[in-house]
Amino acid sequence: MAVYTQVSAEVLAAFLTRYDVGELVSAKGIAEGVENSNFLVETTRDRFILTLYEKRVAAADLPFFMALLDHLDAKGLPVPPAIKDRDGIEIQELEGRPACLIRFMPGVSLSHPTPAQALAAGSAMGEMHRAVADFAPTRENSMGVDTWRPLLDRCGRSLDQIAPGLYDDLAAALDHVEARWPRDTLDRVAIHADLFPDNVLMLGDTVTSLIDFYFACTDIRVYDLAVMHGAWAFDGAGRNYDAAVGEALIRGYERHFPLSAEERGLFATLASGACIRFALSRAWDWLNTPPDALVMRKDPLAYMRRLGHYHPALAMRVA
Amino acid sequence: MAVYTQVSAEVLAAFLTRYDVGELVSAKGIAEGVENSNFLVETTRDRFILTLYEKRVAAADLPFFMALLDHLDAKGLPVPPAIKDRDGIEIQELEGRPACLIRFMPGVSLSHPTPAQALAAGSAMGEMHRAVADFAPTRENSMGVDTWRPLLDRCGRSLDQIAPGLYDDLAAALDHVEARWPRDTLDRVAIHADLFPDNVLMLGDTVTSLIDFYFACTDIRVYDLAVMHGAWAFDGAGRNYDAAVGEALIRGYERHFPLSAEERGLFATLASGACIRFALSRAWDWLNTPPDALVMRKDPLAYMRRLGHYHPALAMRVA
Repeated sequence: MAVYTQVSAEVLAAFLTRYDVGELVSAKGIAEGVENSNFLVETTRDRFILTLYEKRVAAADLPFFMALLDHLDAKGLPVPPAIKDRDGIEIQELEGRPACLIRFMPGVSLSHPTPAQALAAGSAMGEMHRAVADFAPTRENSMGVDTWRPLLDRCGRSLDQIAPGLYDDLAAALDHVEARWPRDTLDRVAIHADLFPDNVLMLGDTVTSLIDFYFACTDIRVYDLAVMHGAWAFDGAGRNYDAAVGEALIRGYERHFPLSAEERGLFATLASGACIRFALSRAWDWLNTPPDALVMRKDPLAYMRRLGHYHPALAMRVA
Repeated sequence: MAVYTQVSAEVLAAFLTRYDVGELVSAKGIAEGVENSNFLVETTRDRFILTLYEKRVAAADLPFFMALLDHLDAKGLPVPPAIKDRDGIEIQELEGRPACLIRFMPGVSLSHPTPAQALAAGSAMGEMHRAVADFAPTRENSMGVDTWRPLLDRCGRSLDQIAPGLYDDLAAALDHVEARWPRDTLDRVAIHADLFPDNVLMLGDTVTSLIDFYFACTDIRVYDLAVMHGAWAFDGAGRNYDAAVGEALIRGYERHFPLSAEERGLFATLASGACIRFALSRAWDWLNTPPDALVMRKDPLAYMRRLGHYHPALAMRVA
């Protein structure tokens, strides 16, 4: 949510000569995305996003992300692929960091999507899953089900500094979800894995871009929808479920992939898994971010409350 | 250097209906300017900067700044005026803050201006000073010569935490400069008072915009040039003076206002005053910013070193 690496206008103008994109006209550091440095760059021909990848995005994973974006773009889906330089190279180095010049996409991220907007976004996810049927590369989910127990152990009893009883609550939820997690039966494809409203650009009720593919990986297809459901259908604090939005998301998705009986039966487990994943990653960040740092700490308990919605039996004592 | 106040896409779209500017297409929080929240906003018709004024800019001063920008724009100078809404209003309120929708200006801020670029920038300042000859509103310089002693006193001996001896060095420099400060003899006009390279947008050797007028005030005309000289003609640490850049700035300025013998004689005093002003404001920020905050603390000593260039007799023992 900040610019971590500065790029001078002189360095940027020289960088752009690698590409056939015209000359630099304007560059503004922008405050968004995961922990990367982003610039909105205008040239005499077009606009672009320049991204420098900071520590959270592993350079080794960039080829997977960029291949996925190219694949989706080639199929006509609204995603921002990296621009190729004169030698056909997408992943560059700038100021000592991996860097990509990326197509600028119109649209805005909504704070309070309506059911009509959720329907369009759910449908866009379905289209994306259709389009990856023939996408061969794979990437393990670095935040997948098998990483939750080790992350819980690393957080340990420090979790109780966030809310008394949080460690026990999370451990009980994880026992429940792990025991029911579908390991082999459901369809697995390349998923976005983080399709929050932030990562969907829209104009009116039309999706203009899916963005921020930096958690994309190979995992259970309907888990992607479960992540999206938890992110879209609740208020930020996770207290109130908006059934109209939640149902519209699924209805939009089902235009492309009607849920099977097994997927319906497992949806609450997949969504509970998503809640554990975000509660844990937020808790880790919370415990490792100084309270006076100027970054927003996202509340882990907002996902403990969602967990109670999906599995009332797991309703957190602390939330 | 961050977005302090978030504006949702829904709120922004509604805000734009006050204006005749088309509909919202894109909005990105941008990381620049003084301590305001800035967004690069694109509509179906054009691009704009939306600024929400945070605590450092007093709402009471906005009419002066906006009138000055309108005056300069009307004379054809490259500056970004505020857009008027359908009722002719420039200064709005949004999310509880004063807010202006501002014309987008092309160009980039240079990190290492060349002499040719300095010549153009010096000339642009001269043009600006020409254009304000008939600008009637006035604003006291909130960082002017009479504020330096009180600010030094408020910092007090804490200055020595930054560098041992800094308080005594600054006090001695201030004694020297105050005794020689021209109180009545030099021309006074509306000045920018902060025309660092950051605040001049250029394309090649052409100035495309002067920006960030939020320290603009009525003060000694050549003091504006002295501030600019200190900001442009040294490396960031203030160790090395670039005579070609410094002389080009003055040569550019003199296209419009040849310096009088008196102005030449007082230039080192005015420039020393500028060094004291920036050393003090940076020192105050330094002492009042936690070392682990994610904002860049600018080094006060970089201005103590410049002071030694302008007045070798004042060369700081600490720098």
